Amino acid sequence: MKVAEMIGEVRKIVESWRKEGLSVGLVPTMGYLHLGHESLIEKAVEENDRVVVTIFVNPAQFDRAEDLENYPVKTEEDLKIIEKIGGALVFLPDATEIYPEGFNTVLEVEELDKELCGATRPGHFRGVCTIVNKLFNIVGPTRAYFGEKDYQQLAIIRRMVTDLNMPVEIIGCPIVRDEDGLALSSRNARLSADKREKALILSRTLRELKERVAEGERETSKLIRWAIERIEKVPQARVDYFEVVDRETLQRLDVVESGGVVAAAVFIGKVRLIDNILVG
Amino acid sequence: MKVAEMIGEVRKIVESWRKEGLSVGLVPTMGYLHLGHESLIEKAVEENDRVVVTIFVNPAQFDRAEDLENYPVKTEEDLKIIEKIGGALVFLPDATEIYPEGFNTVLEVEELDKELCGATRPGHFRGVCTIVNKLFNIVGPTRAYFGEKDYQQLAIIRRMVTDLNMPVEIIGCPIVRDEDGLALSSRNARLSADKREKALILSRTLRELKERVAEGERETSKLIRWAIERIEKVPQARVDYFEVVDRETLQRLDVVESGGVVAAAVFIGKVRLIDNILVG
Repeated sequence: MKVAEMIGEVRKIVESWRKEGLSVGLVPTMGYLHLGHESLIEKAVEENDRVVVTIFVNPAQFDRAEDLENYPVKTEEDLKIIEKIGGALVFLPDATEIYPEGFNTVLEVEELDKELCGATRPGHFRGVCTIVNKLFNIVGPTRAYFGEKDYQQLAIIRRMVTDLNMPVEIIGCPIVRDEDGLALSSRNARLSADKREKALILSRTLRELKERVAEGERETSKLIRWAIERIEKVPQARVDYFEVVDRETLQRLDVVESGGVVAAAVFIGKVRLIDNILVG
Repeated sequence: MKVAEMIGEVRKIVESWRKEGLSVGLVPTMGYLHLGHESLIEKAVEENDRVVVTIFVNPAQFDRAEDLENYPVKTEEDLKIIEKIGGALVFLPDATEIYPEGFNTVLEVEELDKELCGATRPGHFRGVCTIVNKLFNIVGPTRAYFGEKDYQQLAIIRRMVTDLNMPVEIIGCPIVRDEDGLALSSRNARLSADKREKALILSRTLRELKERVAEGERETSKLIRWAIERIEKVPQARVDYFEVVDRETLQRLDVVESGGVVAAAVFIGKVRLIDNILVG
């Protein structure tokens, strides 16, 4: 496995693969890999001749300095994981390689980024679109893999790729959960044992909401009110948003329809966690 | 020479060239080709194994409905010109192929698009960036050719390509002028003989301004005042903007420096013409 810090090196390596007619899978990450990332890399290795994993904690997509500063890092371990699964190249740039002086281009998906995380994290998806667009142009992958935990991110990236005719296939992969139901996230590392226990309220509430829908409750305002009350009964848990939206347009639904997704963000103390579940 | 209306066709043809290891030049146009476009296509044919010319009057870059409606068209003739010079493929899409339902992505270069044409044509460069980005993704050219007449456009496209790491080389080509000095433009077709004569004031003023600089005048405010007065003495001529700016950053210069460009837009009646000249 090769590790490259410079864009020019990455281009050269991938170019040589392309000349051999090999397909290339890309898994963009911010590092601190967990089983969720591993599932993306495994799928990419299954479906492509070569796999590139990027590790870059993208400052442009952090709206809170505190969150960026505390984002966990374990690069040496990450590299071992990637090599074991079968990655061929890791791109590990620093911020000056990605955002050179005079950087001035703005890229965003206008409607999809107004709701959910976009409403409470200004500029976040602009940062996501920019870095993902750049990585696609640097690597030129056949396919790129994203987790469905970041549901809105996946919808926005799909829209950007369609709108800009980017020659890459976007593959969404299911959420990976711990045995107790907590959606895996690098940010879980910042939870104490006590807070980790409290954080379970999010996945539990989503699962029970789905059951309520199965039992016939369709009115989203009722479901949401019930869910927020339930979550905020837990000490130190605060709902950032809790919404039922259309799977593609991310527009709010008044009644649960087929094609709905329940998406939520909850602060447990200072750590913000997201999760979602398909309903209807 | 092939003519394709659908994105899928273009991809297929270019993909087959790429498999043979051929280089691809792209010349994006809005049609109504003149000798300026021809010089771009000639250069592209010289420097690449295959050349793609696109003809698409991009509605997203027109700020005035009147300008879009009156944009001249002569597709049959254009195709003959391209074939004669040696183009291999013409991409001739309609607007629904380029902007499908739900199109939602915004792309712009923030600082460079505030001055000059960006100041008086709101949204123009957003439209330019979007279509050029899309065409690069659809065609995947080795090199792309743009005229220096649209000086700001060229600077913005270079910035976008650098910022987003697009794998294409941008080639700027010199302005082509009629014998009397008028910069060639598809919009010249909308000038009556009388107005065409009046339009010469723009290139003449730029040329004389350059002489004044050579004679020692460096203060841009004086030069600009002189130029605007001179142009607006001509009946039906109205200056949209007249600026001396840095060649890369497009920031206004107080004194003419090496690396300056004088860029201007002038209305002759209802027709808006642009031109520029390097100074310093």
